[in-house]
Amino acid sequence: MSDSKRPLVISAPEPRTLDLIFTPSARKIFGDRYEIFEVEAVQVDRLPDAILEQARYIVGQPPLSRQTLEKMRSLRCIFNVESNLFNNMPYEFLFERGIHVVTTGAVFAEPVAELGLALALNLARGIVDSDIDFRAGKELWGGDGNRKARLLSGSDVGIIGFGDLGKALNRVLSGFRTRIKVFDPWMPPSILIEHGVQPASLSEVLSQSDFVFVVASVTSENEGFLGKDAFASMRPGAAFILLSRAGVVDFPALMETVRSGHIVAASDVFPEEPLARDHPVRSLPGFLRSAHRAGALDIAFTRMGDMVLEDMDLVDRGLPPMRSKRAERETVSRMRSKPVDKN
Amino acid sequence: MSDSKRPLVISAPEPRTLDLIFTPSARKIFGDRYEIFEVEAVQVDRLPDAILEQARYIVGQPPLSRQTLEKMRSLRCIFNVESNLFNNMPYEFLFERGIHVVTTGAVFAEPVAELGLALALNLARGIVDSDIDFRAGKELWGGDGNRKARLLSGSDVGIIGFGDLGKALNRVLSGFRTRIKVFDPWMPPSILIEHGVQPASLSEVLSQSDFVFVVASVTSENEGFLGKDAFASMRPGAAFILLSRAGVVDFPALMETVRSGHIVAASDVFPEEPLARDHPVRSLPGFLRSAHRAGALDIAFTRMGDMVLEDMDLVDRGLPPMRSKRAERETVSRMRSKPVDKN
Amino acid sequence: MSDSKRPLVISAPEPRTLDLIFTPSARKIFGDRYEIFEVEAVQVDRLPDAILEQARYIVGQPPLSRQTLEKMRSLRCIFNVESNLFNNMPYEFLFERGIHVVTTGAVFAEPVAELGLALALNLARGIVDSDIDFRAGKELWGGDGNRKARLLSGSDVGIIGFGDLGKALNRVLSGFRTRIKVFDPWMPPSILIEHGVQPASLSEVLSQSDFVFVVASVTSENEGFLGKDAFASMRPGAAFILLSRAGVVDFPALMETVRSGHIVAASDVFPEEPLARDHPVRSLPGFLRSAHRAGALDIAFTRMGDMVLEDMDLVDRGLPPMRSKRAERETVSRMRSKPVDKN
Amino acid sequence: MSDSKRPLVISAPEPRTLDLIFTPSARKIFGDRYEIFEVEAVQVDRLPDAILEQARYIVGQPPLSRQTLEKMRSLRCIFNVESNLFNNMPYEFLFERGIHVVTTGAVFAEPVAELGLALALNLARGIVDSDIDFRAGKELWGGDGNRKARLLSGSDVGIIGFGDLGKALNRVLSGFRTRIKVFDPWMPPSILIEHGVQPASLSEVLSQSDFVFVVASVTSENEGFLGKDAFASMRPGAAFILLSRAGVVDFPALMETVRSGHIVAASDVFPEEPLARDHPVRSLPGFLRSAHRAGALDIAFTRMGDMVLEDMDLVDRGLPPMRSKRAERETVSRMRSKPVDKN
Repeated sequence: MSDSKRPLVISAPEPRTLDLIFTPSARKIFGDRYEIFEVEAVQVDRLPDAILEQARYIVGQPPLSRQTLEKMRSLRCIFNVESNLFNNMPYEFLFERGIHVVTTGAVFAEPVAELGLALALNLARGIVDSDIDFRAGKELWGGDGNRKARLLSGSDVGIIGFGDLGKALNRVLSGFRTRIKVFDPWMPPSILIEHGVQPASLSEVLSQSDFVFVVASVTSENEGFLGKDAFASMRPGAAFILLSRAGVVDFPALMETVRSGHIVAASDVFPEEPLARDHPVRSLPGFLRSAHRAGALDIAFTRMGDMVLEDMDLVDRGLPPMRSKRAERETVSRMRSKPVDKN
Repeated sequence: MSDSKRPLVISAPEPRTLDLIFTPSARKIFGDRYEIFEVEAVQVDRLPDAILEQARYIVGQPPLSRQTLEKMRSLRCIFNVESNLFNNMPYEFLFERGIHVVTTGAVFAEPVAELGLALALNLARGIVDSDIDFRAGKELWGGDGNRKARLLSGSDVGIIGFGDLGKALNRVLSGFRTRIKVFDPWMPPSILIEHGVQPASLSEVLSQSDFVFVVASVTSENEGFLGKDAFASMRPGAAFILLSRAGVVDFPALMETVRSGHIVAASDVFPEEPLARDHPVRSLPGFLRSAHRAGALDIAFTRMGDMVLEDMDLVDRGLPPMRSKRAERETVSRMRSKPVDKN
Repeated sequence: MSDSKRPLVISAPEPRTLDLIFTPSARKIFGDRYEIFEVEAVQVDRLPDAILEQARYIVGQPPLSRQTLEKMRSLRCIFNVESNLFNNMPYEFLFERGIHVVTTGAVFAEPVAELGLALALNLARGIVDSDIDFRAGKELWGGDGNRKARLLSGSDVGIIGFGDLGKALNRVLSGFRTRIKVFDPWMPPSILIEHGVQPASLSEVLSQSDFVFVVASVTSENEGFLGKDAFASMRPGAAFILLSRAGVVDFPALMETVRSGHIVAASDVFPEEPLARDHPVRSLPGFLRSAHRAGALDIAFTRMGDMVLEDMDLVDRGLPPMRSKRAERETVSRMRSKPVDKN
Repeated sequence: MSDSKRPLVISAPEPRTLDLIFTPSARKIFGDRYEIFEVEAVQVDRLPDAILEQARYIVGQPPLSRQTLEKMRSLRCIFNVESNLFNNMPYEFLFERGIHVVTTGAVFAEPVAELGLALALNLARGIVDSDIDFRAGKELWGGDGNRKARLLSGSDVGIIGFGDLGKALNRVLSGFRTRIKVFDPWMPPSILIEHGVQPASLSEVLSQSDFVFVVASVTSENEGFLGKDAFASMRPGAAFILLSRAGVVDFPALMETVRSGHIVAASDVFPEEPLARDHPVRSLPGFLRSAHRAGALDIAFTRMGDMVLEDMDLVDRGLPPMRSKRAERETVSRMRSKPVDKN
């Protein structure tokens, strides 16, 4: 296909684009180091054998048949930059062959954690309503406006899920002297303790926190696991901040609990996105809304490209990838996230 | 006046009240340990000699004449819980006599720092406008809504003033891996370095930061020191967050620079408070408004009472107060803050 | 073999013992949850088929033939508690089958880091010679004894290798405001930056540090890579602390550089262990000796058992192990550590 | 005396010298900014009026009569670089006049904390005896030599005294995940809590710690306050590290408790210094000796000069000194430290 000595990369990063995930300078390094073969995802299975045989990497998550993979004798790693894992390639066969499938979703951890903290502080201090009142000349000054205000510093915080996102939240909370309880059944307690947080049951996290952050992925096991009873068990006036997937909560029950005044809430994710114009959450007092903007920052996307370059460099040298996150035999089939259809 | 063995405290905490600055349980300890003589501030000068002679402490900032103080032979410490220093007592004479005058304003540092961080994150992520759009069904989803969004993590931060407030800001920023430059001409550089921040000139702080926080008090020397040129020197798109006193900035120049689109801003303080109904800042895009609510939280006020109790305990035992902040001979006359007229 | 429903574990932990790696209470949990079949390592290959077929785990690193493994249809994970990887089982076949091989060597990171810091502080302050002089009545008091003394705080530190050990060192150094440079060719620079250290070349680490810690494993590529020129390039008076394996340095060259007075050094590892009675390092001034005691603390060994229990719990539930470290296809063949023959 | 416009400094820094406390470059700045009048401490009282009248600063702690001070109408600050306060000047009169007396002893905090940590780690790991055995060819390898070894990480630590030294210790311990209890009756509990340590009684600190650090100054109230019962109340095998003044402990009782095997100990200070050649502590097993070398590092002394320059700069500008520590009316008479007679 080419007499270049540069390793061959098949690029099919939909719904991302190379321009989204690489800064111009990283894009240049990518092109200098590798021969890039750009193709639509659905075309990968039909590429000529000569290309399939030579390709060392795939950037993207194209549908791949076992027959195609059998031809790809040079393939070492698939960089899934969508970051959710679809059931569109024979993972068992990839694992047997020792071909890594890695995702770059960790880039979203920092932006999401910052937005999560911002939403929590907004709930604690009523910033949105305060500014709206100010615009209208109805603002309350000083202590008069702070009847419900409270501090994050020194409070009890609960985190549900302690993957990249939970760890990033723990980091941005480090200046607040909070006591953090974490529920994550996939994580050994000693790792939580090493991160300075306290392992806890779900019910402890819910009932003993002033701020509860949900950063757990949806799996086949936890769909809708936070419902009416969970919200009822929270401290009166506590704040519930939903950052991962709407699928883990019973959304109507959440809205109802906020409407009752028992808790306040903020969410970056919704049962349907975009959301119906007349959805009642739009006008629900005590609920702060963010339109799935927590992670989708330009800087997060360009960090994907940096990750890809760093890990290709390791794999080129015969080392395992370290920067991206590997799909695991055990968990690949449990993930149930919906594909993103926009960046 | 009393045959009690409890030390006598003259209480004239206006505009605070004992119920504001003490939790019920702290109020009880206060009453158990001390004999409390409650009086209006303007009456202190006219109290009977027997009371003046016995009083060990004053809680409040009443006008005090030299004659009155000469009678107060047992006086050890004045706890100014208003926290700004007025020119209504002969400080030189107090200093000569070794009577401490202490303020409890440090209680506001943590609430102000949290609000400051919240305002910065709001500017970075457009949270208020995003929620307003969402209520109206006009929200932009994902990356479409994040065209101007950016991270605080890893950014360049400038802090002007490094007293209690600046230090509290530095603390809540500790999880964000920012590079922090500080301008504070009253602070030796080595102390800044020990706090992990970089001493810098005012112009470096302004021109090399993505987020500039102003937490400097107004003094006779810095009124209006941040004007048109200062704002023009800031990075395009940078965020300016004003948390201390409106007096340190040229407010019209600040508004003009925001209106031009060069920077965005947030402020908790305004040239007049309350502000005229038709003040143009109310409708200024790119400007986030908070009605002097940064510090005035219940928990801040009740911490004042805790401070008073801890320092009285030290002074009772012949030790200097450590929890409150002492007025200093050198700087007492330089402070120019306006009295607060509400809590 | 048994009608118990408890999963079967083949236990062959040589040179460890179950009593070494489990506290009594952890040992009890282990026995309650699993059926333990204890056997000498060399006997595993000859166990009856019924046992091989049922075993879910192996604790130890017994020699295993492909034939044996083919019978072990229930095997999910081998817990190598020796922690070095020998070439005594068909790793490729294990990887193909998705059987995890994990090591528990991370338990040594904290004890080794503490000893490493202690050795560095000893070199900086001359503590050993100072106490020896004191015993002999020849001590120098105060500044007279501190002619060569210096601080770790604020100094330039170099770390070679940033695995578990390097990270633990970085952690115990966190209170010292040091500037840390790290050389680790297996680690992407961005991960180093996330840990707050500066990625650097080997020559930068050597020539720009006041303290150099070596915590790199021996691989097929780095045997003896620190030699005469490396030591000569260090700052005069700098301290070299060797904590991982003697194989990474040219030991005679290290001794020679210390003898010349150019650097001082400490080592926990030696070319032969135990060392000849007349080895010249025993009397070398400027050299601090520790007899391979950095990691071998009781508490480290019992943490191995805790790791094993936590990871078995994950694997029992169909999740991948997280607490132990997985052997990697790419690197398993590169490791060249000698087996330990004592705990 | 001089027509120079530079402010006049009387320099009488015994037992320090200007060359000890200033680096060459700082010494040059000092000379460029100020007119330096060097004199023996005992001569200051006899200086000509013209000099006394003009002097803005004194560097040192000369004996000063009230008559002399009455002439010193320009005096603003006395920089006591010995750092203990002697009873050789009329402090009341200085305080009345608003003349600051400051000490520079904080420079020793970091060196002392590092040595304190080193001594603790030495006791925990037996480093001195281990190296002595190694020199003699009698070393025990690996776990055989670690029968009594233990970790600092995760242990219970007690600190007695939480001034500059206690805070510096807390800082160097920050990477060890210890639980720290502090006893300091001069310090409000809330300040301790802000530093992340737990306020505790003396008996809690002694009886619930694995490592006890003593960094309290001797006062009129605490001489010998740690005696036989105190040591007996410690955990078996705990380590006692004495860093401040021998006067706070009953030294024979400490030695006796170490000899009994109940605790191990290290000390940088002794009842007499230098110590008798035949003092039994010289040969006491379980006791690690350091000849008052904890603080006296060159870098500590030159930081004194930096402090002096930074604070003179503040005072020149009409601000209070911030870098050095002010003598306090309440406590100046309580301090009982012996003068140092060597640097």
